Amino acid sequence: MSVKQKRFFLSEDEIPRYWYNIQADMVNKPMPPLNPQTKEPLKPEDLYPIFAKELCHQELDQENAWIEIPEPVREYYKYWRSTPLVRAYGLEKALGTPAHIYFKNESVSPIGSHKLNSAIPQAYYCKQEGVTNVTTETGAGQWGAALSYAAKLFGLEAAVYQVKISYNQKPYRRSIMQTFGAQVTPSPSMSTRAGKDILTQTPNHQGSLGTAISEAIELARTTPNCKYTLGSVLSHVSLHQTVIGLEAEKQMEMAGEYPDIVIGCFGGGSNFAGICFPFMRHTIKEGRKTRFVAAEPASCPKLTRGKFQYDFADEAGYTPLLPMYTLGHKFAPANIHAGGLRFHGAGVIVSQLLKDGLMEAVDIPQLETFETGCLFAQAEGIIPAPESCHAIAAAVREAKKCIETGEEKVILFNLSGHGLVDMASYDQYLAGNLMNYDLPDEVIEKSLGDKQA
Amino acid sequence: MSVKQKRFFLSEDEIPRYWYNIQADMVNKPMPPLNPQTKEPLKPEDLYPIFAKELCHQELDQENAWIEIPEPVREYYKYWRSTPLVRAYGLEKALGTPAHIYFKNESVSPIGSHKLNSAIPQAYYCKQEGVTNVTTETGAGQWGAALSYAAKLFGLEAAVYQVKISYNQKPYRRSIMQTFGAQVTPSPSMSTRAGKDILTQTPNHQGSLGTAISEAIELARTTPNCKYTLGSVLSHVSLHQTVIGLEAEKQMEMAGEYPDIVIGCFGGGSNFAGICFPFMRHTIKEGRKTRFVAAEPASCPKLTRGKFQYDFADEAGYTPLLPMYTLGHKFAPANIHAGGLRFHGAGVIVSQLLKDGLMEAVDIPQLETFETGCLFAQAEGIIPAPESCHAIAAAVREAKKCIETGEEKVILFNLSGHGLVDMASYDQYLAGNLMNYDLPDEVIEKSLGDKQA
Repeated sequence: MSVKQKRFFLSEDEIPRYWYNIQADMVNKPMPPLNPQTKEPLKPEDLYPIFAKELCHQELDQENAWIEIPEPVREYYKYWRSTPLVRAYGLEKALGTPAHIYFKNESVSPIGSHKLNSAIPQAYYCKQEGVTNVTTETGAGQWGAALSYAAKLFGLEAAVYQVKISYNQKPYRRSIMQTFGAQVTPSPSMSTRAGKDILTQTPNHQGSLGTAISEAIELARTTPNCKYTLGSVLSHVSLHQTVIGLEAEKQMEMAGEYPDIVIGCFGGGSNFAGICFPFMRHTIKEGRKTRFVAAEPASCPKLTRGKFQYDFADEAGYTPLLPMYTLGHKFAPANIHAGGLRFHGAGVIVSQLLKDGLMEAVDIPQLETFETGCLFAQAEGIIPAPESCHAIAAAVREAKKCIETGEEKVILFNLSGHGLVDMASYDQYLAGNLMNYDLPDEVIEKSLGDKQA
Repeated sequence: MSVKQKRFFLSEDEIPRYWYNIQADMVNKPMPPLNPQTKEPLKPEDLYPIFAKELCHQELDQENAWIEIPEPVREYYKYWRSTPLVRAYGLEKALGTPAHIYFKNESVSPIGSHKLNSAIPQAYYCKQEGVTNVTTETGAGQWGAALSYAAKLFGLEAAVYQVKISYNQKPYRRSIMQTFGAQVTPSPSMSTRAGKDILTQTPNHQGSLGTAISEAIELARTTPNCKYTLGSVLSHVSLHQTVIGLEAEKQMEMAGEYPDIVIGCFGGGSNFAGICFPFMRHTIKEGRKTRFVAAEPASCPKLTRGKFQYDFADEAGYTPLLPMYTLGHKFAPANIHAGGLRFHGAGVIVSQLLKDGLMEAVDIPQLETFETGCLFAQAEGIIPAPESCHAIAAAVREAKKCIETGEEKVILFNLSGHGLVDMASYDQYLAGNLMNYDLPDEVIEKSLGDKQA
């Protein structure tokens, strides 16, 4: 009879009471965001018109390593946290690897991904400051769904601008947002100046994240008691996501192991930060030898092939200038199915860490991600989100190396979400309709050449 | 600071080692299934050509109250079990009820519902007996998805006949089955005699569960080493599902409470049996006063408006005759979105228990189920399957009674699955396109009048 434990949980008492702010421990701090007009470093106050004040301070906090999780946020975390740390015995067996593979299963959250970890505190701080309405943009809808539910929890009205083509082609996540009571508007819309301008020029415009961001920011700026929220890239979002790694650290202790390699998929960087930063503090402070691997799509390789420079976070150039690895803010990634990873730049913290050699990055072609997703589904029963397949693929590459070397390396990856609302993508893969995308150097050079500042 | 515990888990050691067979404890045993030709009571051997032998014996076992869960099955249960018992603080607050509401969250299983609890042992027993291929039918695809994954775990080939209209209109669950490696065929198909006959008569036939059952049974009968499997109605399926209630019993102890009312939605009866039977044994053996409530759709009210008589389990009349509450095996339920509850009859055990007054039943109109589903989603974050909404609606009715009486009743219901792959139904509800269905007595009388035996 087996005595192998498959899943590790924390009691509700053990759910973290603080988020970990790695900025305080970094030797080289991230360079400051700049006001695009004045080129002056941004102060928290500069962000007040858009974000809840507390979030503006968290964004730029380089002093406090531990930020207390408000008790009402922690109460709602209990609705699904701790998430299980799972020993992937099924995957190990399928691969025949001596590696010990673990994954943190963030797919068990109510909306199916890690996004809720930040949506709830963002909604909470808004409510605390007297805000009544929140707004955001969403593409496929993971972040929009998280914000819609979080807003409902705190009695806020949520208005979500969803990229029009996703609104029409991926109605499931739109319905999820509407079930949570959110108002969902296809973008570009006639409800904002930005939307009207685009529709006047191009009446059948199918939308883009850049446009949806512009519309949401405009709504926040022009509506009393309304704030904008963002689901990745920013430092305060990464901060909230550290609840993932802090739990995983305690759970790995329960399993009696410590990871040699920690892996996350990479879009703007928040789920990667969430699983990695708590472990990375032992590398920074105690010199622990752990590899941190960001897995990005080969078709959107900002970490592996981009350039470290100041750039805008959005296509239209409305945001502050951020010091980051980027493919250029006008970069148009191929239409891969991991929509959450189709972003041209990396958050400022991760960019600095990569520059300093504290982490590494790999790029994965689309077909390899779905092949690995099917393997994982059959071995562990969970159909992973196309985004999460990148992390699994990177983990599988490492586990396969262990077959050759015979090493029993301990590999931990973050399963950021499930793919049950992305089955159309799997359908396309199984039908043989998906492809990899070549990305010639010239395309990247040209995109980076579109200077902004 | 709150100390209220939200979720209760068992350690992997505490996951049940035995299923509970209520047949052994029933004072009035279920009447025997009959051979439709000879009208003789069925013996296990009569079922051997179709089902794995061990399952045939479990089906008719009225002796052994406890059936050991094979260790490999228990190992796979660990992939997602124990499922959380959740105190629905959010729902209680939304209703303003003094009742204590708990739900067992079976939606956290890899395929999103309770179906895997029986798919895994069914695949296991097949494998043990040298079977290489399994087959089944599926409508919306919950059971087909569960069997596809379970088959893969034990290295069996799975062939699923999916009702053609669902195959085309609900491609998500088809893709889930295919991702798990199953061969999915729209039914009626040209691969069986039964399918060919129907297609010859009606070339554009859109399929029905009855036809798909016929095709799957024919495949099992005509293929070496191939067995048929079924996801509900039968007694061995209910047996496997008792793992739900056995866990819940221990978890309610952790919460320091015992349910006054236990509720499950009702299609063929297996998830209802799963949550109720373990608690019902204390009613049978110790006289504990607990109410057991089956929640069925108003448009398919076999328990509340059907008749107890021998009837076929399938439309075509290929199965043994079963003693059950039925609307007649030719009954065509309205096209409600809770596809899993659109079945004309109830399992033989539940039918006997209802006849003996050990349980009760309520019927819920479709609009109330979706209204309750949205309320639950906003309060607890989980979008429930349309089927599960029936259980929630029954629980909400009871909780509202407690507002009037001031009683702090303890209500437990089974959340049999999530609705993330059913968002098209919510979409229709939110758009105001759904309706309730009147079901005149004459329709039921006419359906029951189609005599069979």
